[in-house]
Order: sequence, then structure tokens, then C-alpha cells
Amino acid sequence: MSPAAPLLQTPPAPIQLPLSRRMSRMTSSAVREILKVADRPDILSFAGGLPAPELFPVEAIARAHAEVLATEGASAMQYSITEGYPPLREWISRLMAQRGIAAGPERILVTNGSQQGIDLVGKVLLNAGDRVAVENPSYLAALQSLGGYEVSFDAVGSDAEGMRVDELEALLTGPTPPRLIYVVADFHNPTGRQLSLARRQQLVALAQRYGVPILEDDPYGELRFGGKDLPKLAALDDQGVVIYISTFSKTLAPGLRVGWLVAPPSLVKSLTIAKQASDLHTGTLSQRAISKLLGSFDYAGHIGMLRGVYGSRCQTMLGALEQNLPAGSKWTVPAGGMFVWVELPEGMSADALFHKALEEKVAFVPGSPFFVGASSGRFMRLNYSNRTPELIVEGMQRLGRVAKG
Amino acid sequence: MSPAAPLLQTPPAPIQLPLSRRMSRMTSSAVREILKVADRPDILSFAGGLPAPELFPVEAIARAHAEVLATEGASAMQYSITEGYPPLREWISRLMAQRGIAAGPERILVTNGSQQGIDLVGKVLLNAGDRVAVENPSYLAALQSLGGYEVSFDAVGSDAEGMRVDELEALLTGPTPPRLIYVVADFHNPTGRQLSLARRQQLVALAQRYGVPILEDDPYGELRFGGKDLPKLAALDDQGVVIYISTFSKTLAPGLRVGWLVAPPSLVKSLTIAKQASDLHTGTLSQRAISKLLGSFDYAGHIGMLRGVYGSRCQTMLGALEQNLPAGSKWTVPAGGMFVWVELPEGMSADALFHKALEEKVAFVPGSPFFVGASSGRFMRLNYSNRTPELIVEGMQRLGRVAKG
Repeated sequence: MSPAAPLLQTPPAPIQLPLSRRMSRMTSSAVREILKVADRPDILSFAGGLPAPELFPVEAIARAHAEVLATEGASAMQYSITEGYPPLREWISRLMAQRGIAAGPERILVTNGSQQGIDLVGKVLLNAGDRVAVENPSYLAALQSLGGYEVSFDAVGSDAEGMRVDELEALLTGPTPPRLIYVVADFHNPTGRQLSLARRQQLVALAQRYGVPILEDDPYGELRFGGKDLPKLAALDDQGVVIYISTFSKTLAPGLRVGWLVAPPSLVKSLTIAKQASDLHTGTLSQRAISKLLGSFDYAGHIGMLRGVYGSRCQTMLGALEQNLPAGSKWTVPAGGMFVWVELPEGMSADALFHKALEEKVAFVPGSPFFVGASSGRFMRLNYSNRTPELIVEGMQRLGRVAKG
Repeated sequence: MSPAAPLLQTPPAPIQLPLSRRMSRMTSSAVREILKVADRPDILSFAGGLPAPELFPVEAIARAHAEVLATEGASAMQYSITEGYPPLREWISRLMAQRGIAAGPERILVTNGSQQGIDLVGKVLLNAGDRVAVENPSYLAALQSLGGYEVSFDAVGSDAEGMRVDELEALLTGPTPPRLIYVVADFHNPTGRQLSLARRQQLVALAQRYGVPILEDDPYGELRFGGKDLPKLAALDDQGVVIYISTFSKTLAPGLRVGWLVAPPSLVKSLTIAKQASDLHTGTLSQRAISKLLGSFDYAGHIGMLRGVYGSRCQTMLGALEQNLPAGSKWTVPAGGMFVWVELPEGMSADALFHKALEEKVAFVPGSPFFVGASSGRFMRLNYSNRTPELIVEGMQRLGRVAKG
């Protein structure tokens, strides 16, 4: 080597940037890893939480986009106000009235799916160190999102009637009362249960008495295929303590990322400021296309069709569980939504079953990650909305073989 | 009234929910109120920060949506991975290479415009009480978004060469060094300036030496109509201290809400978890339509056209300012972007001028809200991208009459 050749520089080691404290509450979830494995094309998966894509109104959505782009052109692609597209807010306001919730457009904020509603409520209401009461088990991505505000969770028990509201009053009168109560009253994720009428009334009364807001997360409420509608918590509240969030993700299509929240006007103002700081506004074209679609689409008829199909898939799954799972297994009997929650017999482990099930090319989500704190390790969540009856039967047969084998 | 008639209930007073501390940092901005007034149809406004809608590639975007919906159908409307649509990440990776930034798809996260990039970086890196160094004045919505993480700002001066990097070292070696440096190096909002090459090199060297990350916000970089490209800060960094964010909002259309960030792979993982908690993912259809568009669209030609038009509008504005503003007024001469930053002569107030200008049906944004701390009150921001040359001339004539009158 010639002495004039330059010395090779050792590339500097990349600098490790320290993360914020909140990131320790938002670790990559076990479920995320499970879903990656379950997503392998050779696996018959009941692990995800996906609506049935073959039921998306693809043609109507395509037509709505084409019409908006042809008639509204550039204004459908420009920046728009954070609150949301006014005609869409008006349509949602009328939908809310049908659900018993009196909410003018000024009480509605359009969000990127209901997930963003959870995040914005956390942003606007929660301080580090606060406590949040959640049903146990609970929707995992809500725990992730709210946990990111450096709160601790108070786990409230759950039974056939949903959240054990009787356990809540002790928390509300305790030394460190929760600052927020998070609840999925209709067709809970992961349990598939609904909160009973008596408990709905008790829950709203408690929240009003102690001035603690409820975040009512209602992505599944329209997917009822059994029993009668129960009033939304927001419909029982005349004091502005219930913040209600919902979405078109399960009724039209999730990939458009359009949901909404309903809150008192002053709180909507704060939530709007928080959303502006987060991402300025939800997609202009998506909002206008959905608004255009809803102007002529038979929304009620479409929901009726979804209810029929999901109800039938649920029935198929319940029957197949009966036929295939080992004696001593128990499961919820949902009246709507997308999930059945299974408890395996004593001595069995859902985690162990998951790994054996993969060998039989079938997948589910073990229940433990949905719990705040420890669980029995015997729960699993099964999704029925995303598979045909034939595949549901095939999948439950595989699962049964593994569970019994 | 019959004695059997029920007593009318007084409706209970709505419960006022206490807001989180961070909301005191995210008050409804003065600019928000100004923009509402300026948005009145009778006002010729130079207040907003909108790209020219008549230059949006509406037909190409419409065709891309139609093709995606026709050929990909339901999968273009389903939930999708948080990281972003893989072919779009690959295209962005190639675009990044053109900008001198070596970033494989695994270093790219698709976001809802670059605004969400700012918010996610705050979420992942900042704790309450941290300090963030910003150029003064600075992009208002970045101050809002980062301020929401309960940080304080260190205002770094700005001159014709952009951020006074020489002021930064004292902060970095001081008792409470910043945890993040936020900078718009190309065509700053609100000043329209660019950071000089020497300062870019100094800035990256400082960030590397002290291990403090830079958030390089680059929404305008492609809109250069004068001078030569300067290297992106991210292109000068070989140690992973620069997080780069950009967007299709100024080059294709903002209403689709698609932007991206570039960071080291381990940080992208954390940012992805934070995005999942925030809103699961960016719109599937928007991402796929943009990806489809870019497969056949003459992106470089489109950018060239935008540069030509914006350059011409900027020239028109500079000429009209020369002809109409009172003696002693000064302004920046941008080589790209969307804004001119005007300093009125001593003794004049931009706030007072704003109110008088409204009477002449012309509007701008007074500069004070862009400053951390006090300002002279003599600055105003003028947007030229969103008005035709004729309207720019008319508007500056009105403004001149008011300023001189």
C-alpha cells in the first residue's frame, strides 16, 4: 500500500437516541407479533380483527370517488378544516339521532378511524400519573394508546353482563380515583359481550356523580344480529360526561380511515386543537367520497346485510366450537360484533395451544395480552367476521384436533 | 295546570371536564382565528399556506383512484400495515436517494402528511420539561404539536442564512441542553429563507457531537425556483441523528394526507408503534392511489411546472411589494417555497395593518404568532402560491394603499 493512500475511516457508530418515558408503555405488542405470524398465507387465521372485505361496497365507494373527483375536482384534494367536512358531520349528526344521541354537527369531530378518537381523548384529558379504569380484559390498542399518556390502569372485572360496574364505585371514592373510564359497551373486543341495561344506567350515574368522563368506544354497535338495541351510554347522559366514538371502518371500509367522536362543544374545541397538532385534518377526499356515498347509498340495507352474514358466521363458529373443542371449554355467545371469547378447560394453556395450532395451520390470539395484569392463560379470541362458514368449520376442526391431541 | 302534571326538571348543568396540562400549550392559535376571517369570500387573502389547487394533477389522481379501485378492489379498502404500503415506501426510498439520502424502505414510515411526522417524533423522543431548540420565528403548527409534549422552546435567532447555528452551541453545552432541534432548512415557513451550506454542515456536526437529534422538516424543498440545491441535513448525517420528514402535500395534493418520515430503523420501529397507537395506519386507498399514480406519472415534469409557476408568482409579488409598500419596508427574496416575509418600517404595526387591510378586503398573517417570545410586531407573512399574478398585483396594491394611507 502506498504511504499516500488515505487511511480508511472507521464509520462512526450510530448514535442511540434516548426514547421518551411514554414509549416504555407502548412496546411492540405480543399481538402484533402474533398477527404477523398468523398472516402467513398458509395459515387459516382467526387472529385478526378484520371485517369481511367481500362485503365492502366496493362499487359504490368507487363510484362515489369518481363522482367527487369529477364534480369537485381540486377542492376535494385541498387542505380542509380540522373539524371535518360539514355535510359529513351533518349526516353523522342524523345517524347519532338514530342511535338516541342528540348531537348537532358542532359536537362532532371527524377522526382517522375511532383509534384516533381514543388517542385524542387521552391527549386532551390525561396527565402522566393519572389512573384510567378499564374493563379487564380490554381492547389492546386502547391500552396502548392511553398508556402512552403515562397513566396507570385500574382493572375492573367483567362478567356475562359486561364491566362489573359495582367494582367501579370503590375506585371512584378511593384515594386515587380514575380520571377516565374506558368502555366498549356493545360487543366488546375481545369478549364479544354487551353491557346490560342496568349497568349502563349505573355507570352513567356514577360518572355523573363523580364527574369522571366515560370514553364509550363503539365501533361494533351497528353489527347487532341478536337481541334488542340497548341505549348507548351517550344517550343516557345529559351532563356531558360521556365522550362517544365510532367509525365507518366496520360498516363501510376501514382503509378509508374515517371515524368520528361526539363530545360537548367546548371539549370538541379542545379535541380539534389536539387533532390539528396531530395531523391537521382527516383526508379531504375520503370524507367527501363517504359523504357522497351516503347521499344515495342504502346504508340501513347494507348494515342489515352485514348483520345477517356476521350473525350466520357467528352461529357457524359457535356450532363448530361445540362440536370440536374439548369438554370443559366455555365461550361467550355474542349478539353482535366480530369476536368469540373462549376459555379453555383447566390445565390447558392458550399460549401453548397457539404454537401447536400453527403446526396445524390455524391461528387465533391468546387472551393474555388483553388483560391488565395476570390472567389464567386459558383464554383465546376468535374472529368470525373475516372467514366464510366453510373455513370457519375447517378452522375449528383443526383447532379441536390440536386441543384434544 | 293539573296537579298530576309532572314538575319540569331543571336540566343539570353540564359537568366541566378538567383538561390535561398539555392543552395549556395548545391553545387555539391566533393564526387560526386570523385564517377564519381571511377565509371570507370577499377577502383577497394571502394569509393561508395553501398550494395552488389549479395545479393539482386532478385527472391523474382521479385515474389512479379508478384504476386501484377497479383492479385491487376490497384490498384497497381493508386495514393495512402501520409502516405503509410497501411499493410506496420503495418509491419514496428511490426519491430519497435522489435527494442524497440513503434510506431503504425499512427506514421509511408513511404518515398523514408531515404534520403527523412532527407529532410522532415528539411522542417518541420528548418528555415533559424537555427543551426543544427552534429557529425564531418558526412554523406555528410545529410549535403547537411539540408544545403539546409539555416542552419549553429555546429560540435560536435567524438571519439571511437561516438559523443562527452559532447560537446553538451555547445551548448544547449549557445546563439544560435541548433534547431536539427543529429546523426547516429549505424555504422556511414563515421566512422563505434557506439554511446556508456552511451552517448545514455546522448544524449536523453539532448534533452529532452532542448526540441531540435534528428534526428536519422539508415540505417545501422540491419547490425550488432559484439557485442550486443544497444538501439535506439528512444527507450530511452518517450517525442517525437527523430525522427527515416530507410530504406529497405540496407536490401532489394535501387532501390525500400522505407524507413520510425517514429515521434509523430502530427509531422507525418506535415511531411505528406510536403511529399504531395514534391511528393504526394512513389511508390504504390514498397510499395505493399515490403509488399507482407515481408508477406512470411524470413526477419530475410536474415538479418542474410547479417551480415555474411558483417562481413566477414569487417574482410578481416581489415586484409588487417594491412598487406598493412604503419606503423602509424590507422582505426576504425566496429561492423556493410559498412565502415572503415582510418587515414593515419602524413605527408600523402589522397587527394594526391587518385590521385596516381587512377593510380594504385584503389579508395576510401578522408575524408575531410565529415567534417564541416577543417580536417587534412589524413582520407579516405573505403567501404567493395560492393566487394568480393578477390577484397578487391587485392584493399588493390594496395592501400598499392601506400601509401608506
